[in-house]
Amino acid sequence: MHRVKVTVVEEALDANNTIAAANRADFDRNGVKVINFMSAPGAGKTTLLERTIRDLGGELALAVIEGDQQTLNDAQRIQAAGCPVVQINTGTACHLDAVMVGRGLQQLDPPAGSLVMIENVGNLVCPALFDLGERGKVVIASVTEGEDKPIKYPHMFRASTLMILNKIDLLPYVQFDVDRCLAYARQVNPALQILQISATRGDGLTEWYAWLRQAMR
Amino acid sequence: MHRVKVTVVEEALDANNTIAAANRADFDRNGVKVINFMSAPGAGKTTLLERTIRDLGGELALAVIEGDQQTLNDAQRIQAAGCPVVQINTGTACHLDAVMVGRGLQQLDPPAGSLVMIENVGNLVCPALFDLGERGKVVIASVTEGEDKPIKYPHMFRASTLMILNKIDLLPYVQFDVDRCLAYARQVNPALQILQISATRGDGLTEWYAWLRQAMR
Repeated sequence: MHRVKVTVVEEALDANNTIAAANRADFDRNGVKVINFMSAPGAGKTTLLERTIRDLGGELALAVIEGDQQTLNDAQRIQAAGCPVVQINTGTACHLDAVMVGRGLQQLDPPAGSLVMIENVGNLVCPALFDLGERGKVVIASVTEGEDKPIKYPHMFRASTLMILNKIDLLPYVQFDVDRCLAYARQVNPALQILQISATRGDGLTEWYAWLRQAMR
Repeated sequence: MHRVKVTVVEEALDANNTIAAANRADFDRNGVKVINFMSAPGAGKTTLLERTIRDLGGELALAVIEGDQQTLNDAQRIQAAGCPVVQINTGTACHLDAVMVGRGLQQLDPPAGSLVMIENVGNLVCPALFDLGERGKVVIASVTEGEDKPIKYPHMFRASTLMILNKIDLLPYVQFDVDRCLAYARQVNPALQILQISATRGDGLTEWYAWLRQAMR
């Protein structure tokens, strides 16, 4: 059983990669930058996107693709923050794939010069394996999750350009060794950039917005 | 591509179910009770198991199977808590399956009357689909994750007998509406039992141990 499963997964990934490459060419042709946000459930992806939209919506043309197994909750939150959004419900699937994102982008039809932020399904495993055609992957970890996540889910932290350590306002109330977490992250990906933020209290957002502006160049 | 993927996933699930049924028959024959613990990464599964082992290890014969993509961290923590443990590293796979657990149990070889606690890979999606042959599934949610998780990941909350809402010691510091979370959970699974605990501070553990003793009957 296992050999069959592995072969099929490889074939599915091959097909996905082909479509992702086509997506990437489309995005480039249309002058659209795409970033893929991934994290465990509840690490604060939607809250960070809401805040980013409220703070940068006047400066950058933003649009969002929301991925969830079910519900329109996150799309409603993003819309309320003032941003065009498409919700993709994946059903039993645990990740967005290149086909879903290609269709979502067509529906969204963002103007040239836009930044499209994809919020993937909350999952530290499978989304790391599926190229969507994005220009960069951002992983969000939270100080409530324990500092060993980078070494327990190394594919995710290896695939990402930037790690955002969120919820640092909760550090006084949890057992979490920041230095150890960052060391683990750099152990699996020495080139990983790291920002420490609180999306609710506002710590580190200046650096995050600087990173985003840099990514738009 | 999608139709092929769905068919193959269904076949893999069929094969898994056959092996899970064999596991279940084995566990019954050997007088071993098996519970499958699932949650998002960092919701506190390992901490709850450590605490349970320290508090009930003298009363119940306990053993643990640990599932993680990589590392032996959790197995080392369980061993330090004083319990026989087998670590399964799933590599790129995002869940334990019945084959892995069948092999793990053989290696563990727990005496009759044991309670075997399986800590699944941290993931609110895929583990819900894979029967391991266990007698019950327990989902752990945390108040740091947001109250809408039951409706965003309904398969997990529907598959479970018990939901443990963990980290209630952090309620004063996060935006989390307990009543709304419990209402969402009951909306997707009206029969779901619910306990509120703090595995670090100790709230609700008396009720949790009562639940476990009841499950052993």
